Amino acid sequence: MKKYERLAQDIETMIAAGTLRAGDRLPSVRESVASRGVSPSTVFEAYYLLESRGAVEARPRAGYFVAQRITPRGQEPLLTQPTSGLREVAVNDLVLGVLGSVRQRDVIPLGSAFPNPALFPLDRLARGMGAAMRKLQAQEVLENLSPGNQELRRQIALRYVSTGTLASAEEIVVTSGAMEALNLCLQAVTRPGDVVAIEAPAFYGCLQALERLQLKAVEVATHPRHGVQVEALAAVLQQHDVKACWFMPTFQNPMGASMAQEQKKAMVELLTRQRVPLIEDDVYSELYFGMRRPLPAKSFDREGWVLHCSSFSKSLAPGYRIGWAAAGRFAAQVERLKLSSTLSVAVPSQVAVLHFLQHGAFDKHLRGLRGTLAAQQQKAVRLVAKHLPSGTRVTQPEGGYFLWLELPEDVDALQLHRLALSQNISLAPGHIFSADQRFRHHVRLNYGHPSPEQLEPALRTIGRLAARIRSADR
Amino acid sequence: MKKYERLAQDIETMIAAGTLRAGDRLPSVRESVASRGVSPSTVFEAYYLLESRGAVEARPRAGYFVAQRITPRGQEPLLTQPTSGLREVAVNDLVLGVLGSVRQRDVIPLGSAFPNPALFPLDRLARGMGAAMRKLQAQEVLENLSPGNQELRRQIALRYVSTGTLASAEEIVVTSGAMEALNLCLQAVTRPGDVVAIEAPAFYGCLQALERLQLKAVEVATHPRHGVQVEALAAVLQQHDVKACWFMPTFQNPMGASMAQEQKKAMVELLTRQRVPLIEDDVYSELYFGMRRPLPAKSFDREGWVLHCSSFSKSLAPGYRIGWAAAGRFAAQVERLKLSSTLSVAVPSQVAVLHFLQHGAFDKHLRGLRGTLAAQQQKAVRLVAKHLPSGTRVTQPEGGYFLWLELPEDVDALQLHRLALSQNISLAPGHIFSADQRFRHHVRLNYGHPSPEQLEPALRTIGRLAARIRSADR
Repeated sequence: MKKYERLAQDIETMIAAGTLRAGDRLPSVRESVASRGVSPSTVFEAYYLLESRGAVEARPRAGYFVAQRITPRGQEPLLTQPTSGLREVAVNDLVLGVLGSVRQRDVIPLGSAFPNPALFPLDRLARGMGAAMRKLQAQEVLENLSPGNQELRRQIALRYVSTGTLASAEEIVVTSGAMEALNLCLQAVTRPGDVVAIEAPAFYGCLQALERLQLKAVEVATHPRHGVQVEALAAVLQQHDVKACWFMPTFQNPMGASMAQEQKKAMVELLTRQRVPLIEDDVYSELYFGMRRPLPAKSFDREGWVLHCSSFSKSLAPGYRIGWAAAGRFAAQVERLKLSSTLSVAVPSQVAVLHFLQHGAFDKHLRGLRGTLAAQQQKAVRLVAKHLPSGTRVTQPEGGYFLWLELPEDVDALQLHRLALSQNISLAPGHIFSADQRFRHHVRLNYGHPSPEQLEPALRTIGRLAARIRSADR
Repeated sequence: MKKYERLAQDIETMIAAGTLRAGDRLPSVRESVASRGVSPSTVFEAYYLLESRGAVEARPRAGYFVAQRITPRGQEPLLTQPTSGLREVAVNDLVLGVLGSVRQRDVIPLGSAFPNPALFPLDRLARGMGAAMRKLQAQEVLENLSPGNQELRRQIALRYVSTGTLASAEEIVVTSGAMEALNLCLQAVTRPGDVVAIEAPAFYGCLQALERLQLKAVEVATHPRHGVQVEALAAVLQQHDVKACWFMPTFQNPMGASMAQEQKKAMVELLTRQRVPLIEDDVYSELYFGMRRPLPAKSFDREGWVLHCSSFSKSLAPGYRIGWAAAGRFAAQVERLKLSSTLSVAVPSQVAVLHFLQHGAFDKHLRGLRGTLAAQQQKAVRLVAKHLPSGTRVTQPEGGYFLWLELPEDVDALQLHRLALSQNISLAPGHIFSADQRFRHHVRLNYGHPSPEQLEPALRTIGRLAARIRSADR
């Protein structure tokens, strides 16, 4: 741990213990330099880190103060109660209907699944790609086909090393985004009619994949902050012949929940004992606001039962469609499915991402991106508290770019979505996040997309529309 | 038709009618200018066109002469007799084993499915892509996601217009190569257990797709020059509950067969009457050696039963993975499957191909490519006749880059493939082109790949190995 990280952590500990309270002034830089024996820049970096995570706030000419936690824990959404029993999945119509509206240019895309592309080094990627492609020998075009560019696979494997995860370059299949990786993994470990355990609420892409492959879903209770409940999972495994799990243990979509390390470990041990593959959808973990990257469940996998899927779409290169699967003992099957379905990933995209990883200061870009998203989250949470009806509960994830809102029960989210769309604002209604469409007064809100100036008027409008729905209801 | 095309056609007619015979000298340029009232360059262009198609040959300081047809029709492979009845498909192991060897750099890739990437304007594509990507606004990255860049879809639709085919930009879904298009189309019109009619022999990618989706195959008799026999198809439709056909009516892989226009029309009418979708794999039709592009079966489709799939992988941009489906009445289903499986195609690749279509003189590139491939075919056919055992039959397709060889019955193609590989030459053995692996003394030979200097020694070696197999056999 670096010095500034240690300092930041110490201050966080004091906040957590109540030693420092909301509104308290932090020691000045001069004081900290004296008391800790560190350089001024170390103190600045520590305070900046704390600010980016919303723990403190700067007041001009006054210094740094402990921030008001916007959401006392009591106001976060409740633990979900899963629907018991198996479900056929048929959400595709609804999902596509809702998402079709998101891409129009004049719509403020609070319902989008994508972060704002302006947050990414697109110009630098394009320049690097052009240069690298012109250097490529013709023969190399074929050598970049499935399972993917050898050096890119090695670079991806290197990023696993820092999390203590066993994943060799040979295990990695480059795919068309994480979406293809997840779909190939799911197909590799199931047959039509099989049962798959999912979160509640779950990412709609997971529901769509189950529907396409004619699989049945069984839900596992999922905490809005702590994610999948391992005990609940154990009970589900006893009750049903589960052939696979599809979970997002880190910054879950839509809630932002993250399982604690020990819970991830316990989950992997449970699944390994029962020989149930875990498809780990891990596309947001680079967007953490805390001290370090949360470990993937894969890092606790010693026998290859975790199929880890991720991509660069949310961290570096949206639209380049570079994802991958590190599919453990199922790697060969995944590679074969890839060959016989889409054959290979576009060579220019592979070359562009590789070039950036080698020359582009990926980690520096990520630090900036995390800071921006953390600051936007603070702002969004504040605006939700200000403009949405009282009684609205909201998660406050430690990474990613989604908030999950639980509105008062009489606000139908689908109706809210339609009204908002008529005002050129999109929302992702809770309905699309479960097979039985039961998250009816819930909304996923993307704070990584709109420009800061758009956010307040948009949330004000949504608050007004929600109030209108409530009064019409009475 | 341009003047030089008219002149070339007239000469071809004279050759076909026997007025001009092999070895006859064509009129000199001066004579033709006088007799036809055209410019010298028109005559040169006509002779060059005829030469590129192997109809005539230039002899230094002597002029142009009618070429010897290498393969009298009697020496082409025989009409295939389909296996009757339904078949489970399980070829994947064999196919992947065989194809795994093709990509090594020191292997002369006569077994490859890809044309030589050096035949393509890769540098120009890369430069155009780099420039276009840097001009792209961040927001446009998202607008290029499924179903694809709007202007690219329009450009693709424009190319249909010239073949009299009804396909609007709205119908077109951009995919990761033709392979994904074909797979999505197949999934859109079938359920596991359904019966699909295929050619015999068939492209192994078709067999792999059937296997992956757990479909059953029924074969239709296929002529090595004329393709699917419509009467045989009618009989198969009567006998089996066929849910879809997957055919390559133009330059079929592996045989190179092309159905006549009337046969394509009759086939589409038959399938339309019986409401059976046709998945038309049409990736080679731009590589024609004749006067004009063969019409796709889709051009005879008035009710949307043809799902036409193609790509730029074989005509412009290998490794960019830009293909598409124009799926007629099934277009919406295909788009939905795309969204829930791989989401979207890489934006840089889309932008690169679009930029080339708009600025890159695609048709000029194609003319050069066709001429090169036609000349290489002539050479390859000659070398096959020279070096392979007598009794070897060979197709002489009017486009593409494959020859289909029927060796004497006692030459096992899998054994030949293994021996050749030990000499660093790859071959595609006939075994991988049918569910029952019965094309055992057949070989698909890619003449679009090796450098011309490699071709003769490679075929000499293969001839020697084939002879060795025959003598060991006795």
